[in-house]
Amino acid sequence: MPRAPRLAAGSAAREAGACRQQSRIPLVFRPLLLERQEGSATHQLAAMDTDPPLQLRVFNLNCWAIRYLSKLRQERIGLIGDTLRQEGFDLALLQEVWSERDYCELKQKLTACYPYSHYFKSGVIGSGLCVFSRYPILDTFLYQYSLNGYPYMLQHGDWFCGKAVGLLVIKICGIIFHVYVTHLHAEYCRDKDAYLPHRVVQAWELAQFIQHTSKGADVVLLGGDLNMHPGDVGIRLLRGWTGLRDSFPDTERFEGCEDGCTLVPTNCFINKEELQPFPLGIRIDYILYKGLSHFAVKCDSLVTTTGTAPGKSIPYSDHEAVMATLCVKPREEAKGSSSAIEPELVDVVNEARTEVRVGLHTAERQRYSNGRMAILALLLLLLQAAMGLSSLVGWDSPQPFPKLSFSLLSLLATVVLLLSMVVYVFHTIEVKMLQGTEEQMRLALQALQDKLSSM
Amino acid sequence: MPRAPRLAAGSAAREAGACRQQSRIPLVFRPLLLERQEGSATHQLAAMDTDPPLQLRVFNLNCWAIRYLSKLRQERIGLIGDTLRQEGFDLALLQEVWSERDYCELKQKLTACYPYSHYFKSGVIGSGLCVFSRYPILDTFLYQYSLNGYPYMLQHGDWFCGKAVGLLVIKICGIIFHVYVTHLHAEYCRDKDAYLPHRVVQAWELAQFIQHTSKGADVVLLGGDLNMHPGDVGIRLLRGWTGLRDSFPDTERFEGCEDGCTLVPTNCFINKEELQPFPLGIRIDYILYKGLSHFAVKCDSLVTTTGTAPGKSIPYSDHEAVMATLCVKPREEAKGSSSAIEPELVDVVNEARTEVRVGLHTAERQRYSNGRMAILALLLLLLQAAMGLSSLVGWDSPQPFPKLSFSLLSLLATVVLLLSMVVYVFHTIEVKMLQGTEEQMRLALQALQDKLSSM
Repeated sequence: MPRAPRLAAGSAAREAGACRQQSRIPLVFRPLLLERQEGSATHQLAAMDTDPPLQLRVFNLNCWAIRYLSKLRQERIGLIGDTLRQEGFDLALLQEVWSERDYCELKQKLTACYPYSHYFKSGVIGSGLCVFSRYPILDTFLYQYSLNGYPYMLQHGDWFCGKAVGLLVIKICGIIFHVYVTHLHAEYCRDKDAYLPHRVVQAWELAQFIQHTSKGADVVLLGGDLNMHPGDVGIRLLRGWTGLRDSFPDTERFEGCEDGCTLVPTNCFINKEELQPFPLGIRIDYILYKGLSHFAVKCDSLVTTTGTAPGKSIPYSDHEAVMATLCVKPREEAKGSSSAIEPELVDVVNEARTEVRVGLHTAERQRYSNGRMAILALLLLLLQAAMGLSSLVGWDSPQPFPKLSFSLLSLLATVVLLLSMVVYVFHTIEVKMLQGTEEQMRLALQALQDKLSSM
Repeated sequence: MPRAPRLAAGSAAREAGACRQQSRIPLVFRPLLLERQEGSATHQLAAMDTDPPLQLRVFNLNCWAIRYLSKLRQERIGLIGDTLRQEGFDLALLQEVWSERDYCELKQKLTACYPYSHYFKSGVIGSGLCVFSRYPILDTFLYQYSLNGYPYMLQHGDWFCGKAVGLLVIKICGIIFHVYVTHLHAEYCRDKDAYLPHRVVQAWELAQFIQHTSKGADVVLLGGDLNMHPGDVGIRLLRGWTGLRDSFPDTERFEGCEDGCTLVPTNCFINKEELQPFPLGIRIDYILYKGLSHFAVKCDSLVTTTGTAPGKSIPYSDHEAVMATLCVKPREEAKGSSSAIEPELVDVVNEARTEVRVGLHTAERQRYSNGRMAILALLLLLLQAAMGLSSLVGWDSPQPFPKLSFSLLSLLATVVLLLSMVVYVFHTIEVKMLQGTEEQMRLALQALQDKLSSM
């Protein structure tokens, strides 16, 4: 069954070519098959209501491609590439492609089907975010989250990834899409989630970034691993602040894991114990969208993989892929730029602000204890230096400690001093950012309440 | 002489109040006096051509308020506060207010005249950026530059400031202003400017941030210490990319230092030797602006201080203050969103890209030398550990080195190992960011050339 043709036109010849181009027949994701809509019309606002809707197939996956650590990485990257080539999506948003070699391999494989692609570089390792597109990428912009875990938590490693949100401006058949791809800080322990304030700050910055950078867009699209359950404060904040809609509850047709989960116990790479409190799994990978003034977007169908790649014995990743078919059509009446504010948003911002405050107290405590540690180490070093000097000039011999212990102790004090100083500086930055976010949220709450009271 | 009244209306009562409010008579900055325009009209797009223009008085100053280091800091902060209160500007954009105590002092003093203010927090010390406004601040957003010097350059200290650009959304008489305040990395040596690639990256990020976040604005306003001479590649890139106009060449009336300089040898806090190649001084503090679709902006008058604060024996700062009176009026015909591209912009982006590439080579070299240093220190430590152990178990006694030297050497090796590792990680991040910017510029150049060829 062929795919729906896209809304025609667009200025550049190659874009028009891409719009006309028919993709391959989807073999595996049946719900993606849509009713054929014949004919095309030049896209003009005046003739909007007669235009056929644009149908866009979006693929999102956290690829779990950490070199030397992720199991069967190369086989899975090969599999992801094959599927993307076979399926011919319009957009593929990938996360955790940590190695640029993997990105280049994918790029080489997909160049015919997805002539445009971008890899966002940041942090020590790289953001892991990349996008493959059938349509020209007109512009890109990266926003790195101001907080993203701790550099000394080497076993978690999020800090080294420079987590960020990437923006791509893509024009599809005359419609300006602002496509955002992101990956937020992981949740390692839900009961005692030390990273919750950082994730809330990231969700807030993501919401703000989308709000401030999407004014020129017709359609906003966000795909990524948000590391938040659908009811978590961060996702409610993001959705409430931006007005983005979640493809899972909104879709007309769904096929895949129960409750739309994207981390499921049937996936062979998943640690079953971690998912014990959630027998069905959890949903943390999302495709969110909204249409601005002149365009309305709805989700025609949504599909997730179910533990293994279709027709294969291994999954693409430890996460499930999410594939949405979005239908973009012109509104009959242009929507005003100032959409209605939900009164619940005040509670959500308040809740998020409380989380930020909790984080602030923790950060202040950690900064204090590192400062104290640095001072103690410095005092110890000074004492040792004084003792060393006095024994050298013969004031106080023989030395009261064995020389080896004395040397080891000074070594330890130096290491502790240096590390405490670095960590102190780091926590000072954390405190500043949390204070700044808390203040920003206070201002936002005030503006919200003003708007609500004037409504 | 009274100031020109502002365009009336605006939805909120307090805003309308602020619009009606007459400010004090400007005593010192004569060129700021403007023709009185009586009457006011409700601001509506339909009635635009009948509206009197809005006149906005903007103050910009790098305050040089570093606690314990800046001379006469408290006196100068007091003087700045007095002048701002006396003059009643509409907006005051300040940089280098490093201490939040100074900000609070200013806020307390100015609360009657400027009821709205915001301090942007970032980095270890704070961004130093703050804004005082007569009109309500509706929203704020901070973008920290991805590169900003080196943490080990303690004598320069830019890294610790978390240099950033702050965005404020301010509605004045129904017109949406996006006000940006920023401070870029300092230039310590013009002949061998080690920070040039970082400053070019900052200028590029600033330009991109403004372009992406200003789509919803009627007027864009940027004030700050850009640490770039008017002809420098960074400022040409910023102006070319954003279409912002420079108030100095554009103003109808100017009074102040020759060539609009803001670092002048007559300022008593200035190191005259540093300004030797520039006998008149240099212009590095700017007020830039542009009107979007429905509004046109021009600079009616521009004033700088001239080494001392008017009527005082000391200057406000080591920089001169810049004060612009901008005239905002509705366009007769709305301007298209896609403004004409100057072909010279391709050369400017290419030039900036070359600077980024130079920075990339340096960063790669520094990363390599730090990696090598860390490996050498590790080898030395391992060797010492082996020697220490062998002497402990009695295989190789007596020890061939004096024990004190042995201890000091291991201490030194540990310190070198730790520091080299931290600096290695830092330079890896720098390399990633420079590579990312270079790639972004390549994409931008391609898009520019496509646009130019289709024109």
